[in-house]
Amino acid sequence: MKAPENFIDAAGVREVFVQAGAGRRDFIRKAFAAAGAAVTAPMAVAQTGASAAAGGDANLLELPEHSRGLGRPVAFEGYGRPSRHEANVQRRTSPGLTQTAESSVSFAPLQSLFGIVTPSGLHFERHHQGWWDVDPTRHRLMLNGSDEKILRKAMVFTMDELMRLPAVSRFHFIECGANTGMEWGNVAVPTCQYTHGMLSCSEFTGVPLKTLLDMAGADVRRGRYVLAEGADGSSLTRTVPMELVESGEVLVAYGQNGEMLRPENGYPLRLVVPGVQGVSWVKYLRRIEVGDQPYGTKDEVSTYVDLMPDGLLRQYTSTQECKSVVTTPSGGQVLLDKGFYSVNGLAWSGRGKIARVDVSVDGGRNWRRARLQTPVLGKCLTRFSLDWVWNGQPALIQSRAIDDTGYVQPTLRQLRAVRGTRSVYHHNALQTWLVQENGEVRNVQLA
Amino acid sequence: MKAPENFIDAAGVREVFVQAGAGRRDFIRKAFAAAGAAVTAPMAVAQTGASAAAGGDANLLELPEHSRGLGRPVAFEGYGRPSRHEANVQRRTSPGLTQTAESSVSFAPLQSLFGIVTPSGLHFERHHQGWWDVDPTRHRLMLNGSDEKILRKAMVFTMDELMRLPAVSRFHFIECGANTGMEWGNVAVPTCQYTHGMLSCSEFTGVPLKTLLDMAGADVRRGRYVLAEGADGSSLTRTVPMELVESGEVLVAYGQNGEMLRPENGYPLRLVVPGVQGVSWVKYLRRIEVGDQPYGTKDEVSTYVDLMPDGLLRQYTSTQECKSVVTTPSGGQVLLDKGFYSVNGLAWSGRGKIARVDVSVDGGRNWRRARLQTPVLGKCLTRFSLDWVWNGQPALIQSRAIDDTGYVQPTLRQLRAVRGTRSVYHHNALQTWLVQENGEVRNVQLA
Repeated sequence: MKAPENFIDAAGVREVFVQAGAGRRDFIRKAFAAAGAAVTAPMAVAQTGASAAAGGDANLLELPEHSRGLGRPVAFEGYGRPSRHEANVQRRTSPGLTQTAESSVSFAPLQSLFGIVTPSGLHFERHHQGWWDVDPTRHRLMLNGSDEKILRKAMVFTMDELMRLPAVSRFHFIECGANTGMEWGNVAVPTCQYTHGMLSCSEFTGVPLKTLLDMAGADVRRGRYVLAEGADGSSLTRTVPMELVESGEVLVAYGQNGEMLRPENGYPLRLVVPGVQGVSWVKYLRRIEVGDQPYGTKDEVSTYVDLMPDGLLRQYTSTQECKSVVTTPSGGQVLLDKGFYSVNGLAWSGRGKIARVDVSVDGGRNWRRARLQTPVLGKCLTRFSLDWVWNGQPALIQSRAIDDTGYVQPTLRQLRAVRGTRSVYHHNALQTWLVQENGEVRNVQLA
Repeated sequence: MKAPENFIDAAGVREVFVQAGAGRRDFIRKAFAAAGAAVTAPMAVAQTGASAAAGGDANLLELPEHSRGLGRPVAFEGYGRPSRHEANVQRRTSPGLTQTAESSVSFAPLQSLFGIVTPSGLHFERHHQGWWDVDPTRHRLMLNGSDEKILRKAMVFTMDELMRLPAVSRFHFIECGANTGMEWGNVAVPTCQYTHGMLSCSEFTGVPLKTLLDMAGADVRRGRYVLAEGADGSSLTRTVPMELVESGEVLVAYGQNGEMLRPENGYPLRLVVPGVQGVSWVKYLRRIEVGDQPYGTKDEVSTYVDLMPDGLLRQYTSTQECKSVVTTPSGGQVLLDKGFYSVNGLAWSGRGKIARVDVSVDGGRNWRRARLQTPVLGKCLTRFSLDWVWNGQPALIQSRAIDDTGYVQPTLRQLRAVRGTRSVYHHNALQTWLVQENGEVRNVQLA
């Protein structure tokens, strides 16, 4: 993948710092921002705004206007927005990655995020035929069976009927099966926004699908599979095994991070299938069918299958295996100082909880155990961190996650030995960031 | 308090349902929205938009346009927004409550929220002199002592220096000490947005203040208090006891719900003091001083003190005691059907975790134990729910929270017996909602 036009190189990053006018101290947040790409334009704006806001004077002895004047009123907007100084923290698409912008992806700026919650405005996107702002008063969810015996009575729910039922709220990650897919070949894309940014984490609220199937009288002995169908033009359809539904984890969800789902994420209704790749989290959910075998739909045969070294395709490899990535420092960032850094990143597993994360700064020769931020939740992002003093020499930074099943995140070599190099989906190998002597951080692949 | 102009009465709510044109099924989400007030105008817009989006036809047999056409592209906005159909879910101010909109509050729409995370765009606001979008490259945090012995070396931090240090991320509620203050008298304000909406909950990210005091060599045997000072025009100053700092819970925070703080909430830096009233979470934090006694500043003497029945003022009552409120059904909502409802709401305690929540539908005569949504975290909101079948008769709905210290949320009578009726702050009595036979829900006070 060639770097998108709006990506600026390390020299550009340095130029931004100079323009920022706040001196060396200013590098690291700007480096975070820079890694998000498209810094130059928004940054120029931000700086102008900043100067105005601060009285247009870098002299810190002068009391800034915000310490002297009257600020803006409450409820300035009914719904608030981020600071103008954060305008460069955006989800970004990758020109040339797809033929159209309606069937494409946008990536979350992982290098700029904290904790485990992804702001809904920065949640990654994957659309098969563009997104819609569907009218919830006209949206319906239908439940039916492949025959009358397998589901006693077909039902149709309005949003209000669904929202009257007992709901649960749970924190879960969602990851596109194709996340980190460019790394299958020898293409090392520049930033972790592009290597791992088809990943987000939210508090989802909805009704367990199990509750609805009970209401409709589904025969879960014969009906071992459900088909989920979306209402958008692509009429996406995916098969979900009944054991996941029976666990109570699969939700018919309308809430995300405390409010209704965002239109790009399936408003007003989407399926939540914890631990499973994003394509199964069907958006604009309009129908659930119970059947006695996998459906083998267009979205399960021609795409979302893994091409193996022997040329065969592996189907229904839906679970997102244990994986992690260091987000700071990461590709595109520039360390202008030696000294202390808090190396941190994210770990997750579609099988359960993260048990442990190790970090190496020498390409895997030596490992140190990272701190895990609590609470550590199942099928949810876990933030890890490790203290590091950079001595100015080249460093190869990696993280390695282990989940509570004992599964250890593989090296790139181990992954390729089994899966080859021609696949697109389910790439969960260790990510390596090279910190060069000049402080520039690059994405490299250790053979 | 008179209802603000933008508040519509139950008759108006019913009219909205008629206008919505989607029939009886549509009532409950609209009721949620209605409780947020100002429904008519935005709702009218939303409905128009909805009709357009759905092909302007309520006939559900016709395939809607979003199932036939091509939708919007990815990264339509670098930073996403809620659905236009949710335009009436807003934080709202209360005309007449304060003399100016710069020294005022806006309330979070609790009746429309799910789970425990408050979307940052709906987080309540309390400003003493308006809000600012402060330039982070020019913002500084100073640490000093009341004398050289109490803090070895005064330090000044840039944002980048702070953001290089080891950080933690934690979920905590923040509540204004004056939340529910109108209920001290006999004023029952119409909705839970106005009774309890000076309450929000976020995942905060920052550096423990303890870390900074260690770096500066503070003498925590002599220095038993810290003073926190804000950079905005009100130069808000609050005293925080050193034992809270030593616990590691007090954070110098820059992150909220995965991104940088919002300007209205103190961007780029605020103090996080879990369990303590919001005024101590100083925004635009510019200085921390270590001293050997409480500072008794203007914000601790003339305001944020509790007027007791004997006319004396109680000072430094900063901890938010155990409290809860039912958010559905709540004031302003209308139940148009008998039958099943999932009664749910929020519970929290500044002392620790919520141990139990009981719900009554007969004004406290009988209580049933509610389900608690996990994870239950310390000094954080906890969502509770209870199944309820409404028989159409009048009901008095209350919730009663108990925290892990054994403290039981008091009745209004119990609270007034100790605190009287002339106070403003720290009202944590049981909230009572009357469901009338016609389904209209009203705020009532049980003597």
